Amino acid sequence: MTKIVDFQVNPAAYRHWRVTYDGPIANLFMDVDEKGGLFEGYDLKLNSYDLGVDIELADVVQRLRFEHPEVKTVVLQSGKERVFCAGANIRMLASAAHAHKVNFCKFTNETRNTFEAAGRESGQHYMCAIKGACAGGGYELALACDHILLADDGSSAVSLPEVPLLAVLPGTGGLTRVTDKRKVRRDLADVFCTTEEGVKGKRAADWNLVDEVVPGSRFAAALLERANAIANASKRQATGPGVVLTPLRRTIDESGDVAYSTVEVDIDRARGLATITISGPTNQPPADTKALVAEGAEGWMLRCARELDDAILHLRLNELEIGTLVFRTQGDPALVAAHEAMLLENRDHWLANEILLYWKRVLKRVDLTSRSLVALVEPGSCYAGMLAELLFAVDRSFMAEGDFEGDNRPVASVTLTDGNFGPYTMSNDLTRLQNRFLGTPDKVEVAQQRRGEALEAADADELGLVTFTFDETDWDDEVRIFLEERTSFSPDAMTGMEANLRFAGPETMETRIFGRLTAWQNWIFQRPNAVGDNGALRRYGTGKRGDFDARRV
Amino acid sequence: MTKIVDFQVNPAAYRHWRVTYDGPIANLFMDVDEKGGLFEGYDLKLNSYDLGVDIELADVVQRLRFEHPEVKTVVLQSGKERVFCAGANIRMLASAAHAHKVNFCKFTNETRNTFEAAGRESGQHYMCAIKGACAGGGYELALACDHILLADDGSSAVSLPEVPLLAVLPGTGGLTRVTDKRKVRRDLADVFCTTEEGVKGKRAADWNLVDEVVPGSRFAAALLERANAIANASKRQATGPGVVLTPLRRTIDESGDVAYSTVEVDIDRARGLATITISGPTNQPPADTKALVAEGAEGWMLRCARELDDAILHLRLNELEIGTLVFRTQGDPALVAAHEAMLLENRDHWLANEILLYWKRVLKRVDLTSRSLVALVEPGSCYAGMLAELLFAVDRSFMAEGDFEGDNRPVASVTLTDGNFGPYTMSNDLTRLQNRFLGTPDKVEVAQQRRGEALEAADADELGLVTFTFDETDWDDEVRIFLEERTSFSPDAMTGMEANLRFAGPETMETRIFGRLTAWQNWIFQRPNAVGDNGALRRYGTGKRGDFDARRV
Repeated sequence: MTKIVDFQVNPAAYRHWRVTYDGPIANLFMDVDEKGGLFEGYDLKLNSYDLGVDIELADVVQRLRFEHPEVKTVVLQSGKERVFCAGANIRMLASAAHAHKVNFCKFTNETRNTFEAAGRESGQHYMCAIKGACAGGGYELALACDHILLADDGSSAVSLPEVPLLAVLPGTGGLTRVTDKRKVRRDLADVFCTTEEGVKGKRAADWNLVDEVVPGSRFAAALLERANAIANASKRQATGPGVVLTPLRRTIDESGDVAYSTVEVDIDRARGLATITISGPTNQPPADTKALVAEGAEGWMLRCARELDDAILHLRLNELEIGTLVFRTQGDPALVAAHEAMLLENRDHWLANEILLYWKRVLKRVDLTSRSLVALVEPGSCYAGMLAELLFAVDRSFMAEGDFEGDNRPVASVTLTDGNFGPYTMSNDLTRLQNRFLGTPDKVEVAQQRRGEALEAADADELGLVTFTFDETDWDDEVRIFLEERTSFSPDAMTGMEANLRFAGPETMETRIFGRLTAWQNWIFQRPNAVGDNGALRRYGTGKRGDFDARRV
Repeated sequence: MTKIVDFQVNPAAYRHWRVTYDGPIANLFMDVDEKGGLFEGYDLKLNSYDLGVDIELADVVQRLRFEHPEVKTVVLQSGKERVFCAGANIRMLASAAHAHKVNFCKFTNETRNTFEAAGRESGQHYMCAIKGACAGGGYELALACDHILLADDGSSAVSLPEVPLLAVLPGTGGLTRVTDKRKVRRDLADVFCTTEEGVKGKRAADWNLVDEVVPGSRFAAALLERANAIANASKRQATGPGVVLTPLRRTIDESGDVAYSTVEVDIDRARGLATITISGPTNQPPADTKALVAEGAEGWMLRCARELDDAILHLRLNELEIGTLVFRTQGDPALVAAHEAMLLENRDHWLANEILLYWKRVLKRVDLTSRSLVALVEPGSCYAGMLAELLFAVDRSFMAEGDFEGDNRPVASVTLTDGNFGPYTMSNDLTRLQNRFLGTPDKVEVAQQRRGEALEAADADELGLVTFTFDETDWDDEVRIFLEERTSFSPDAMTGMEANLRFAGPETMETRIFGRLTAWQNWIFQRPNAVGDNGALRRYGTGKRGDFDARRV
């Protein structure tokens, strides 16, 4: 699995999904091309999926938000007869390297979360209409929808057969959504999750595994009724034409360096580092929402979000040995703040709102990236607003203090905006500053008083916004020594430590999925009972059950 | 590691701890006997600990609650010069089997939690007075105390060197308590957790790693002042002599069956089952608190809690291949309810309160046991009050319906009491019924209306208190088939699934320790970067650092 995984797809070239539009309703058909697997060695039978299928799905979800403001209900359904979706492809899972499995699961989890976010934040609601077998990851797709309709035709059923069949967990949010979202009684959840054939008909509704069950003969009519009812109840007010997400301008050179229009990724393979430099805008923000729509995907705020998102995903899946991501910014912080302010002031306009919500998702993607994250605040930086959020997303930040000889860029500064106090909440529903100052909430208020100032090192340090400040005498050595030290640590220990330190305080369904469920799944994905030669995952399809070491932890 | 681990210890034979009593203050000295390791192959140098040290500690904590009602402050300190505690013994960790490591960590976590519970629930507060190096598990002991005093003598320091030194996590609550209890700023926590030598003096207080720092010369005086201040502020009102926790009556026969006075454990090795049968009381409860104290450890409520606790711990550590625990009860439910009611009515008496709190801890121990848990409600059962909690702690319950031919025991029933609606909250601070009915909270109220009734199968089923009911025609087959099926599943998948399904809804520091931190630690404990031949844990002490696979998940 050494080919580059590309997260950019052209809708005209989708192999696995079709979307038809009917006013406020989008019909999203899953119709996986068996021969369209991302890697060799498996066929995507029975609407099973791999990362490639999910990359297309993520693209659909994203485009629905930007290109189809008119859509209020997305009806997820199968394009195949007799099967809804068989879940993640098992042969793919059995043959994939651990790191690929884990990153695949993380990305699919993030995509499921965007279903819910679209409904909650943008009134674009996902409903799932299930006819045929809906198993494992297939049911996890359904669980991420706001409403589940199941055909009562004697054969359609929902199931999570991972545990009995494969000795792994329903790890794409399945267990967590069963308990936390659908609040299925825990002993019934136990029965459900250990019953290979799943649950159908009335019992599925009684146990709250689905929202409604309709006779097969009424399925199409009920689907339409429900889709219309959801659209009518939606608070979405977007109107007018959407904004087309044009192809990103991106080059990847032989050394692995990646260049976009606002983001550059410099790979230092010897040191295991990637330096991500974000360039601020050079123009003024659009004057009004009309101009914002006219700019479309070329506007700096949207373009930068898309490029940063792609860069992070690229590094996650294609650069597995790059253990540390170093963030840098260069540009005019006042202009960054101005571009963000234009959106914040126009949040009642659907596009302004969508771009801010996209930044929220990109910043969450940063939080959840299992690499050590560092930010350097150097002369000429533009850490303002959503870029300043990077300082609170990283594990550690270093800020340059005062003038650096021979460097005529402006002195390093940090600028807080309204953006740092609300719109970009983390998976735990806290702002990054609330999370940072969990023990001293008054410090959030103190920082809030200083919005709009270009805070230099002494102030940023006093306010607790950066970890360390160094003047030019110490800067190079301190940064170098830290990066060398970081690279010397065990990647696994870093992953575990960062997963615990980054999210303090309250938990949400999302943090429980990434923190608790994922951690257990990662553990199981290491265990011989699943992935050993005689494990259930490896033996799947051979007719032999797994041969288990019975020792309990 | 095949010898039986015994959780019963005689204080006169402690090898690692000393306690001196001074009115409301107990001085608890950690003074580990280097040669007193539970297993061969390592010396417990520098006050490092293994499970044996922790078993004694758990015994101390338990006895302080029952035998020393007068104690309001427990001062945890080192009995050695120059070192406070070096944490869990690394050679022990490096050589232990995975299942032992995981169960060892779980038990030590539970013991740390009892420090906090003693302060919160009984006004018996733990403070920690640190002089000398306090590293890893040593600092995790300190973190579990309500107050940490650190000597400022140029050498005393707190540290969590697990990540840089061993490539594992501070998994005994360390990471979680740093972020959630002490609310250390996350980037400073990152610095702290990657700094092998730790933090000392003023910085330790500034970062909130300790509560106060005092010059070495004032250490003893400051310790005494603080201990007295804590005792004076304590709300503990217990008076009079304590109740001695006399040795349990226990026999273990050659087949592994264990018999106590109120609990029997029947091991079915072929099927991987242990059946735990609890016998209800045969006498009336004590008439008043004077009689309760006079009964002491012989009283049924306390005796049964101690025996059940010991049985669970025995199974966890000594019967690793027993994957399913089947709970049964036999006796008069009205008498069980009467014994519990006597305590509930006298909660303002310290001993009544302590016994109820002990049941709370035992039931939590059940929740956190990584085995499939099943309850059978058969004719003659006495599932009332805290024994009925077992029905809501297990993964699945089966209830017999109606008369069974030739069986003249009373028809199976379940009796709810006030005990099911408050005193025995889980780690997530919900009652088990609240946890069970998270999506339908009105069902808790409906159940509450039925307190005191001996609910037979139809009622119990309608109220949602049991998973399945079967009459005599189906009972034997259904139970047998279920148990066989359960045993056929992967133990790891069961562990992961149960860890997710048992705790829905809100999270607390405790659930985060057991659910999130522990899961990551278990994962790391499987990874070659820690436990491989070239991993950091195996290489510790060789002078060579771990040789890491750099691929990031």
